[in-house]
Amino acid sequence: MKTEILCVGTELLLGDIVNTNAAYLSRELALLGVEVYHHTVVGDNPQRLAQALNIAFSRSDTVVMTGGLGPTYDDLTKETVADYFHCPLKLHQPSLNAIEDYFARTGRELTENNKKQAMLPEGCTVFPNSCGTAPGFALTVESKTAILLPGPPSEMTAMFELSVRPYLEKRSQKILVSHNVHIFGLGESHVESLLKPMMTSYCNPTIAPYAKQGEVRIRVTASAGSPEEGDRLIAPVLGQIQAALPDVVYGIDVDSLQGAVVQTLMQRGLKLATAESCTGGLISKRITEIPGSSQVFDCGICSYANSIKETVLGVSRQTLCRYGAVSPQTAQEMARGVRKLAEADIAVSTTGIAGPDGGTPEKPVGLVYIAVDSPWYSQVMELHLSRGRKKEREDIRYLASSHALNLVLQALRKAPQPDESDCAELK
Amino acid sequence: MKTEILCVGTELLLGDIVNTNAAYLSRELALLGVEVYHHTVVGDNPQRLAQALNIAFSRSDTVVMTGGLGPTYDDLTKETVADYFHCPLKLHQPSLNAIEDYFARTGRELTENNKKQAMLPEGCTVFPNSCGTAPGFALTVESKTAILLPGPPSEMTAMFELSVRPYLEKRSQKILVSHNVHIFGLGESHVESLLKPMMTSYCNPTIAPYAKQGEVRIRVTASAGSPEEGDRLIAPVLGQIQAALPDVVYGIDVDSLQGAVVQTLMQRGLKLATAESCTGGLISKRITEIPGSSQVFDCGICSYANSIKETVLGVSRQTLCRYGAVSPQTAQEMARGVRKLAEADIAVSTTGIAGPDGGTPEKPVGLVYIAVDSPWYSQVMELHLSRGRKKEREDIRYLASSHALNLVLQALRKAPQPDESDCAELK
Repeated sequence: MKTEILCVGTELLLGDIVNTNAAYLSRELALLGVEVYHHTVVGDNPQRLAQALNIAFSRSDTVVMTGGLGPTYDDLTKETVADYFHCPLKLHQPSLNAIEDYFARTGRELTENNKKQAMLPEGCTVFPNSCGTAPGFALTVESKTAILLPGPPSEMTAMFELSVRPYLEKRSQKILVSHNVHIFGLGESHVESLLKPMMTSYCNPTIAPYAKQGEVRIRVTASAGSPEEGDRLIAPVLGQIQAALPDVVYGIDVDSLQGAVVQTLMQRGLKLATAESCTGGLISKRITEIPGSSQVFDCGICSYANSIKETVLGVSRQTLCRYGAVSPQTAQEMARGVRKLAEADIAVSTTGIAGPDGGTPEKPVGLVYIAVDSPWYSQVMELHLSRGRKKEREDIRYLASSHALNLVLQALRKAPQPDESDCAELK
Repeated sequence: MKTEILCVGTELLLGDIVNTNAAYLSRELALLGVEVYHHTVVGDNPQRLAQALNIAFSRSDTVVMTGGLGPTYDDLTKETVADYFHCPLKLHQPSLNAIEDYFARTGRELTENNKKQAMLPEGCTVFPNSCGTAPGFALTVESKTAILLPGPPSEMTAMFELSVRPYLEKRSQKILVSHNVHIFGLGESHVESLLKPMMTSYCNPTIAPYAKQGEVRIRVTASAGSPEEGDRLIAPVLGQIQAALPDVVYGIDVDSLQGAVVQTLMQRGLKLATAESCTGGLISKRITEIPGSSQVFDCGICSYANSIKETVLGVSRQTLCRYGAVSPQTAQEMARGVRKLAEADIAVSTTGIAGPDGGTPEKPVGLVYIAVDSPWYSQVMELHLSRGRKKEREDIRYLASSHALNLVLQALRKAPQPDESDCAELK
């Protein structure tokens, strides 16, 4: 079923709003196995809308439209579709009742205009609007289907969830199941080259890598008759991907590196502390983003000045003088210091030069030291994160924070299992 | 000049990314007086791309394209445009040199593939890529113009700023001059209603508000023959906007709230410290995002646990027991404590309930206290930031951090001018 998305709205053409509707619908339709080949946007102009509809149906079987269902004279999507199909609009009483209810509920007065929203083409499948007034609908004439949805994203997504997805699933008899493998420490092209044989030879499930902010996510998607069947198809592929990419997979179906860190800390019953210089609080910000992180994270110190590294974290003056603030020695003492201060089980620290200023030939912009400290594992890492781009301060800081979180994860994997010895003794 | 935007990329059709490029280009083109009537998205498929290009040129004079300029076999935008115009691609030596420089600088190896990116149609206007490898270009044949830009938004926007806008301005003999008024503490619709008379009656300069993450930016844009003429047209309007919106304008042409805070601290020669609970390091992250912030920021404490509030910040146990961690008293003692610890001139603190769990009827999710402490001004603020939406933890934290930064700015405005008394004595 070739499908395209046609969004109507002058505000999109002026760039006043971003077309999140097209992205949402594309993602949801892809998950349903519906192939979307085009997105089009036109303004609230009847000629250009009619022309766009003609082009769309000349190359697609189904056109999903958003916008132009409002009560005013320039909302013409419905009228244009009705014209295209030679299908007159008729008053749909249940929709009018719903609109009247909506106005009564929100204490506003119904105007004659709003009744226009209850005029629908005969024979259509009506999609009620749970968040607003305009109903949507699907209309099929001679194997061409138009699906009309309201423009405001909250109304559109609610209608999709409640009515459109069930409508499409019923048509296709198939559902899509996806699982995501999360990778840190290997670039997209490298990941792609390692998985290429699988990516090209498998067609169900399919394998697709996505890169974002220094990480790679591999989406494995199966088309199946049930969620269980989908999981059964995907499971072996997840195993193969993990085998092909040893050491760099940090989680499956986790939200983020920080999500994996918080989850692992919870499982192990351990607490983390952070001491940040160049990342300036970004690591603690990312950790505390996760609901429930307060169970595993008590304290983060952003020690931007040497004096704070000394007085709060207990980095020795000698270390700072001899090796400088950006050095493996300082990183190590920062991690050790914050672990002691916070009485944590494990601590991580960063110190580096995020730029754009402050670099020297010996210590250039992008040089970052990350230390992890715990009773069972301590380690310092040297990173060179500059790519010579402009405005890369934020990139360097973000990548440094990701490396720090990943180093914590690696250290946690080496942690002695809780109560392992106790269990052995009990036996 | 009828223009349309044609974005190439299967990832857009899969909904993996949102088409921010189309929105950015639409906004920028509208500001240049260029009328955009269509957006189209197609995947990396040569037939559909060629077809889309034909449709686009059948109704528009200029087609601005993004994406498909990469080095791999499925990047075909350039080839398709060259075919359309019957214009062969030739090696453009300066572009190849730039690509080789880029690889040398980033320490990666140039592959044969990448050389493909330096192949450009004869007679085009080349747009160098300051953030990546693929150059863009404009090509005009018989009054039809194609403008090709790379897909990654950072590369595309940098190229637009540096090359495409000047190219379009040259075509139109006019330049656009913009200044931005930054507002915090008033919603977009409120701002719009206060400025409506100006927005509707002025046509040069134009006034347009943009809302983002709890802030409003008002862009004032003049079409003029020179930058000086533009500034002359805009200056009185900036004054009128500030008069219409007293107390909520935090800066003109500043990057962000944190940028305004760092700038003001530098001007006054003052140092700031932060003590964060619910914002978890987000304030210190935002401050240290600003290059040079190390001159005015030494120390940020993320005291997520009560024990850290007590041991590191010196919040009294009595206060924590009697009023709780989320209380104006605790906020006050946190700010006071971190100011003393860091020997700073001014400090700000946050404590609150970011959710989704942890709320009670007395202290619901979204309740946040923010305190500012300085010798000349101290203040505690109570905020209720929940809107009852799902997944609003990040919104609550971000808004709380913005309120905290804004409170610091307000306090800094009340600070005694440096050396004011000294100057008076000297007279």
